Amino acid sequence: MSEFKSVVPKTINPDLQKERKAATFDVEEFATWWHDGEAKLRAKREVERHIFANLEDGYGINHEYMSHEDVYNTAVRRVAEAAPKLKALQKKLNPGGKDIWPGSLFNTHSHGLFPSNHPLATHATMFTDVIKGQGTPEQVAKWSEAAENCNIIGTYAQTELAHGTNVRGIATRADFDAKTDEFVLNTPNLEAYKWWPGGLGHTANHAMVVAQLYVKGEHKGIQMFIVPVRDAETHLPLPGIDIGEVGKKLGMVAVNQGFLGLKNVRIPRTNMLMKHAKVQRDGTFKASPASRVNYLTMVYTRCLIVNLNSTLLLEAATIATRYSAVRRQSPIEENAPEPQIIDHVTQRLKLFPEIANGIAYHLVAKHMWELYDQTVLDANNGKFERLPDMHIMSCALKVLCTTDGCAGIERLRLSTGGHGYLISANLSNIYGNAVAAYTYEGENTVLLLQIGRALIKAWRTYTQREPLSPSYAYFEEAMRQREFPKWENSWQCIIRALQYTAAHKTRIAYENLAERIAAGQSQAGAANNTGIELTRAAELHGRQFVCNIFLEQIIGEKASRRSKALNDVLENVLELFLVQTVLNNLNDILRFIRLTDADLRSLQKRLEVALEKFRPNAVAICDGFDFHDCVLNSSLGSYDGNVYARLFDAAKRSTMNQKPVQKSFENYLKPLLKANL
Amino acid sequence: MSEFKSVVPKTINPDLQKERKAATFDVEEFATWWHDGEAKLRAKREVERHIFANLEDGYGINHEYMSHEDVYNTAVRRVAEAAPKLKALQKKLNPGGKDIWPGSLFNTHSHGLFPSNHPLATHATMFTDVIKGQGTPEQVAKWSEAAENCNIIGTYAQTELAHGTNVRGIATRADFDAKTDEFVLNTPNLEAYKWWPGGLGHTANHAMVVAQLYVKGEHKGIQMFIVPVRDAETHLPLPGIDIGEVGKKLGMVAVNQGFLGLKNVRIPRTNMLMKHAKVQRDGTFKASPASRVNYLTMVYTRCLIVNLNSTLLLEAATIATRYSAVRRQSPIEENAPEPQIIDHVTQRLKLFPEIANGIAYHLVAKHMWELYDQTVLDANNGKFERLPDMHIMSCALKVLCTTDGCAGIERLRLSTGGHGYLISANLSNIYGNAVAAYTYEGENTVLLLQIGRALIKAWRTYTQREPLSPSYAYFEEAMRQREFPKWENSWQCIIRALQYTAAHKTRIAYENLAERIAAGQSQAGAANNTGIELTRAAELHGRQFVCNIFLEQIIGEKASRRSKALNDVLENVLELFLVQTVLNNLNDILRFIRLTDADLRSLQKRLEVALEKFRPNAVAICDGFDFHDCVLNSSLGSYDGNVYARLFDAAKRSTMNQKPVQKSFENYLKPLLKANL
Repeated sequence: MSEFKSVVPKTINPDLQKERKAATFDVEEFATWWHDGEAKLRAKREVERHIFANLEDGYGINHEYMSHEDVYNTAVRRVAEAAPKLKALQKKLNPGGKDIWPGSLFNTHSHGLFPSNHPLATHATMFTDVIKGQGTPEQVAKWSEAAENCNIIGTYAQTELAHGTNVRGIATRADFDAKTDEFVLNTPNLEAYKWWPGGLGHTANHAMVVAQLYVKGEHKGIQMFIVPVRDAETHLPLPGIDIGEVGKKLGMVAVNQGFLGLKNVRIPRTNMLMKHAKVQRDGTFKASPASRVNYLTMVYTRCLIVNLNSTLLLEAATIATRYSAVRRQSPIEENAPEPQIIDHVTQRLKLFPEIANGIAYHLVAKHMWELYDQTVLDANNGKFERLPDMHIMSCALKVLCTTDGCAGIERLRLSTGGHGYLISANLSNIYGNAVAAYTYEGENTVLLLQIGRALIKAWRTYTQREPLSPSYAYFEEAMRQREFPKWENSWQCIIRALQYTAAHKTRIAYENLAERIAAGQSQAGAANNTGIELTRAAELHGRQFVCNIFLEQIIGEKASRRSKALNDVLENVLELFLVQTVLNNLNDILRFIRLTDADLRSLQKRLEVALEKFRPNAVAICDGFDFHDCVLNSSLGSYDGNVYARLFDAAKRSTMNQKPVQKSFENYLKPLLKANL
Repeated sequence: MSEFKSVVPKTINPDLQKERKAATFDVEEFATWWHDGEAKLRAKREVERHIFANLEDGYGINHEYMSHEDVYNTAVRRVAEAAPKLKALQKKLNPGGKDIWPGSLFNTHSHGLFPSNHPLATHATMFTDVIKGQGTPEQVAKWSEAAENCNIIGTYAQTELAHGTNVRGIATRADFDAKTDEFVLNTPNLEAYKWWPGGLGHTANHAMVVAQLYVKGEHKGIQMFIVPVRDAETHLPLPGIDIGEVGKKLGMVAVNQGFLGLKNVRIPRTNMLMKHAKVQRDGTFKASPASRVNYLTMVYTRCLIVNLNSTLLLEAATIATRYSAVRRQSPIEENAPEPQIIDHVTQRLKLFPEIANGIAYHLVAKHMWELYDQTVLDANNGKFERLPDMHIMSCALKVLCTTDGCAGIERLRLSTGGHGYLISANLSNIYGNAVAAYTYEGENTVLLLQIGRALIKAWRTYTQREPLSPSYAYFEEAMRQREFPKWENSWQCIIRALQYTAAHKTRIAYENLAERIAAGQSQAGAANNTGIELTRAAELHGRQFVCNIFLEQIIGEKASRRSKALNDVLENVLELFLVQTVLNNLNDILRFIRLTDADLRSLQKRLEVALEKFRPNAVAICDGFDFHDCVLNSSLGSYDGNVYARLFDAAKRSTMNQKPVQKSFENYLKPLLKANL
């Protein structure tokens, strides 16, 4: 093996050198802007220098050849070894912060440190967050620090085998036993087994169990309970606990997601999280005051997902773009040398729009974070007006970013041809980690239907001439015009066109819904039957929002803090994004807006020009995201572009290649060869 | 573990029973039709009864928990054990046939027998086929039977690390040495290593090496050479052979794809396949007469791909549809019980169009096979007129079926929510096996560009008023009309609309190409710059073809052989397919055809009605494909619908669940828990 490490040269592939020299902007300025300033960029790099130094040989790929069990045990070792180092580094580089510990357990660094993720992922995020958010001060004191210091390892157990998105349907129950001042938890049937919690399989010794509370036989709604599940010393499952892992998945292989059945498991009353709802010693139940704060938690989680998924998309785009600048194939001019495949126009169409998508979603998420901070301030002052719109917008953003992002990652993988099929390219792993978000935290279609309901409500408000909240204000402007005005080649025109279309799609969904109700269908039945149109309107509503915010981020007042060279590049990214959005949605737009043949030709031209302008900067833009090679973990995507040497090096690490002949030869293959079938 | 097997009841889920009772047609008639008659259906079931009886416990999933190496060794054992049984079964059930041996190594049965595929896949298909197709009678005598009886195991080595689709660029060379009457094979550099051949890693002892032939230093084009790569007794790599596997991939895990470097490897002159080109003893080279037969091989392979990928799509659709009839979630009417999720209209839109896609591609492939047989007959009589059209149509069919099919499989997986993320659902495995076809046998974008070039050529023919071959005859009809006639709600109107659109897209691509050439660009450069429009025109050209043939298969003379009940069902499948095709391509159609608001509403209505009509027959249609449970190999898709029990059963088979505490606890997790970080 060591012999083969030498095939990776220390030099940079000349094609990439050429690309970097040809860029029209300063990559370092891009990176600084992208990472919110010099200090943050420097800090990020400093952390990476520490955590990615001295990783064992083959760190990013060896686990792929292991058994499922060894992958798990290796991940436990890695996270247990990393923990004290990360904590020490936090103390040294940024005392009091959380960006390194526990940050590196789940931020972008974690993609490099834990390529198949790890079994403390849910512990370090949801378990610790929920205690702080939903616990009383005493509960926080008791569990929060213990959890943060890993004296206990927890997980969050909500979803059941037969109930996911529809949380109200979960069937695990917790009965209050006033005699012993305990809750008794039970899983009534197989369908009610908890299923999916990260680390629950063999790692966590506590689970935050979401269950239906009953006091004196009366149902008191869904509450959360801290349930010890394994012995602190022996780690054996506690009595009444049936626990294990859910089996292998297409991604997040080392997360050790588990199942849990509970049989008369008793926990003290004080193990129910009681910041909001309460059960008192005598069994008196105090309901939670109607809380709008939950909305904020959901907004928070969805913004995190958009950060994660736009990052994963850009990781994939960086890999595919660098590869496309190095791979040479299929002469364009006969008898000419084979060009970099990035010079095939159809290849550019596979790469650059995904880069634009990733940048757009990242910037829109940034806007959402600013809004979020403002909304938290407002909420603390008793002002909640902004919440419902925020909620719906975060739903739309989550749906669009995960849908576009995952499809984009797979398109990018396919753009790398056969080599993208190799695990060592890391594109399939990135996809596996990204695509889970299509389903969790609100399945995308379910969220679109929620947005659809909000649109219907807003449309009703509009037709009743009542004031619309800002998210829907475009309805008025769109409907004021009998017909969409003459098409202009401007960004604003594109956004107006999307808004005009979204408004009319909403109108049609509303009309069809009303018609169905008038024909005797129930409100709910009619809404189900109008589902296709509602989801489509919801998507367009989201798209006009994303385009609008992206435009603002690029040409708004923030532009003045960037050089002209960088702004030129970003404006071209914006142009590509907007033109692509129009072209991808013409099936709806053309229904309401008459674009002439000349308009359509000019849009196609704009697409081609934007791709052409993008070309010299594509590699440099990807460099500007400043992904560490360990984070990309890709034979195709490393900074040096030594693609073939790295593919070969990765292949040589296959455990199978350590032996010239496999053991099945003597026992099975040789007899077959000699059998004269 | 055995305790947990008992959680799978022997009964059929009542929801599925209800579905089956409600079907409006006879499933057995569907199955008979689908499998080309009673005799074939009976034979298929008979084979399945034999080959799927007595599979070891956990056959379909145990390998998922193994190390990469064990997966391979297990696959070798399975295929070596299966071989004599399959051969005996062939002799018993259908002597002289090939449907069982070697058929079951690669047909639908193989999906059940070899869930991660197996290392003899390339041997049993390409290696044996190429010898027969390209070898002289002596060569066939020498190698063909030995290969068919597995006395030698071969593979087909064409693609190199740096050269795939562009075969002309491969760099492996074979120099004729007249002194010794041998060829000397060499891999000039790392980039020229052979890469991807199935079984090459550790299984094959022969490789069919594709190389640039040189005789007396003169280049004589690309030829094929049979090269022994491993010792027949010891299986050790032979001198000059650097061999190994390419590393893990996202699918086809047990195929043992390998790399190969050659250093002065000598083989007898007679190891070059010489049916066409020849090197004589004295070094005289006889070039191959320009052969149109290669076209036929390509057509053959692409039809096989369409068969495979439409089958995989329908396997996924069967799994997702059965699951959707069993899963209950999210009340439609408030306070009503949770419905089968198949009753959410948005869910139907995820399922039924994919079933229609699978049926359409399957039937179009059937048509292509009939054409193929006819074309072979014609070719034997010296008639080659049909060949170029066949070639282009098979390209289009391969591109559309793999693109739509793979996207469909992933949509279906996502439609099953979280559980589809589990390996035991088998949807990710189906995807992994299907998606490779996007790239191999002509990368899809490269094929679209080929079709685009053929369209440009045909358009030029049209503008010069020369006779068009049948595939492009629709240009004339489309262009005869100044404007598309009034929209009708008929299938023929949809096909005319697609043809009208394809013709106009071709016209625009042609115009833009001509404009670029007029502006001074080279033909090739202009074609590259027109690539986006060319690929889009190519796609539409393919779509009108698929729709046209599908229509013919459903309402043509074959309909009279089916009952009215079955024809009603199939006509609804057709309706759904055509309406969906229009709706998915409105972005182009609306550019050329003015559909009124009423037309568009009526298309939406037709979509909704077709989905509604599909609903009672969805499960029964999937039953009609007659997939054996072992072929589906899915916790979500078995015939009995015992979804939760099977999910649980599959989880319990995880090797990790055989121990309550993993070994990393003592060494790593416990120290972390006690560390007081």
